[in-house]
Amino acid sequence: MEPTRIALVGMGKIARDQHLPAIAGDAGFSLAATVSPHDRGIDGIPHLDSLDDLLANGPAVDAVALCTPPQVRYDLATLALKRGIHVFLEKPPGATLAEVDVLQERARKTGSTLFAAWHSRFAAGVAPARAWLADRHVSKVEIVWREDVRVWHPGQAWIWEPGGLGVFDPGINALSIATHILPRPFFLRSGTLELPANRAAPIAAQLLFCDAAGAPITMDLDWRQTGPQSWDITIETDAGTCKLTRGGSVLTLPSGTEHSEDREYAGLYARFATLIRTGRSDVDTGPLKLVADAFLRARRETAEAFVE
Amino acid sequence: MEPTRIALVGMGKIARDQHLPAIAGDAGFSLAATVSPHDRGIDGIPHLDSLDDLLANGPAVDAVALCTPPQVRYDLATLALKRGIHVFLEKPPGATLAEVDVLQERARKTGSTLFAAWHSRFAAGVAPARAWLADRHVSKVEIVWREDVRVWHPGQAWIWEPGGLGVFDPGINALSIATHILPRPFFLRSGTLELPANRAAPIAAQLLFCDAAGAPITMDLDWRQTGPQSWDITIETDAGTCKLTRGGSVLTLPSGTEHSEDREYAGLYARFATLIRTGRSDVDTGPLKLVADAFLRARRETAEAFVE
Repeated sequence: MEPTRIALVGMGKIARDQHLPAIAGDAGFSLAATVSPHDRGIDGIPHLDSLDDLLANGPAVDAVALCTPPQVRYDLATLALKRGIHVFLEKPPGATLAEVDVLQERARKTGSTLFAAWHSRFAAGVAPARAWLADRHVSKVEIVWREDVRVWHPGQAWIWEPGGLGVFDPGINALSIATHILPRPFFLRSGTLELPANRAAPIAAQLLFCDAAGAPITMDLDWRQTGPQSWDITIETDAGTCKLTRGGSVLTLPSGTEHSEDREYAGLYARFATLIRTGRSDVDTGPLKLVADAFLRARRETAEAFVE
Repeated sequence: MEPTRIALVGMGKIARDQHLPAIAGDAGFSLAATVSPHDRGIDGIPHLDSLDDLLANGPAVDAVALCTPPQVRYDLATLALKRGIHVFLEKPPGATLAEVDVLQERARKTGSTLFAAWHSRFAAGVAPARAWLADRHVSKVEIVWREDVRVWHPGQAWIWEPGGLGVFDPGINALSIATHILPRPFFLRSGTLELPANRAAPIAAQLLFCDAAGAPITMDLDWRQTGPQSWDITIETDAGTCKLTRGGSVLTLPSGTEHSEDREYAGLYARFATLIRTGRSDVDTGPLKLVADAFLRARRETAEAFVE
């Protein structure tokens, strides 16, 4: 089978750090073009300033991976889907829930594959954690996701704008894991968002969720963490504690600790290839719904101005 | 067939103004009890302080109508559904989207009817507007929903708290109509929420939505309107203008104006009876999703403090 000719749209940090190597390492895909108005692309690969330009003048593509900020994702995905091109959406899949529903409906009509990617679900510890938890009774969950925004999101002005999610940009990764591995659905009870006086998005959040059986799930998000970084989920069950650390790559169960190398984006592209081959889509808006609920339901407090 | 024995939970303004007369006027229901910690109920009907108390000591009921603030709706609905009692949820159906999903799943398991009521969809002009619009091409929609909060929501502290929606409490009525009558789904592009300096919920909002075909939908919500009140939706189409005024009760089409008496709650209870009789649920979270998207995506501005 011929590899899927794919264009990478939006050449920021995630495209260069993760998508380029993952595409290069997957025989099912060939990189046909890169697209960005802010970038000159990479040697030997056609580069276009815009998706319009690619579709009008560029090499033919079967698929696009959209790595732009979420605020412009809808228009790009619509352009592609209208031509029957398969679409890989970086997380979050859009700036609103309703726009993702519209994209999903459009993909259904055109028969294209739409894939809302949640990379953290492909971290090494996540699938075994999910399997182990399937039959357990969960009594308590603690999510701690604290990182240094200056290290991980340098110069990303869009992330502080409405639709950019602020500290939920990493926090949604934790929610994508939790919604995937916990045996019961959960929802927000109460919470606080801290917004820097000069920004439109939160820099920290303390949230209390509750699962369908009443178990409490606390979430501590903070972008002001210097020194060691924390991306941990601790789940107390009737059979002991399940702990995911390092963003899901390290799993500790009562029986011991497993640690594998990072294969998140390799996993995502393998999944995208399967979806295309079998003519399906995979769009789970659950993690974004929990974030929208937090913006809807949590109390806001003003924090110190953030200057990069 | 015996009438459905129903308890009215939460005896605020909407329960007294709308639910009591609607239940009294529907032979399919008999009012078995009222429940509220803040109220003494009505003459001749058993009154309990809490739903727990009703379920433990009160008269038997087949259904409950939950007219409490949305922040406490989930726990009450869960109590009822666990006993196989049918549940009528006033709008909005919950304080978050995810909790309504959990309730829906629970109703599915217990076989109870769960009805997320959107009363404005039963306004007289809405069904004919929907029928007229079904085959039209919509080019532009304008929603203006401006009322005086002091007149319509006196003393409702909960409405200004997180989960209380602020000006979206009436605004969601407009969205419940728009999502029901417009031929295409729509989503938020951008917007501004105005929050009084001393309140957690918006007093006004200016929003720009867009439908799946690109038609703009503007929404102007304001709770500071004195004098004449506005609850209007104007829809420009290829066959002329469709205008719903007075909250959906008056419909003006190119062929003329129709005006019928208000039967919103009679319509809701007739629908609830049908759902119970046929063993179904009806839970559309679409309008709440658009509100959550507005909290997620719109920019916030501080407005003058609101003192009642």
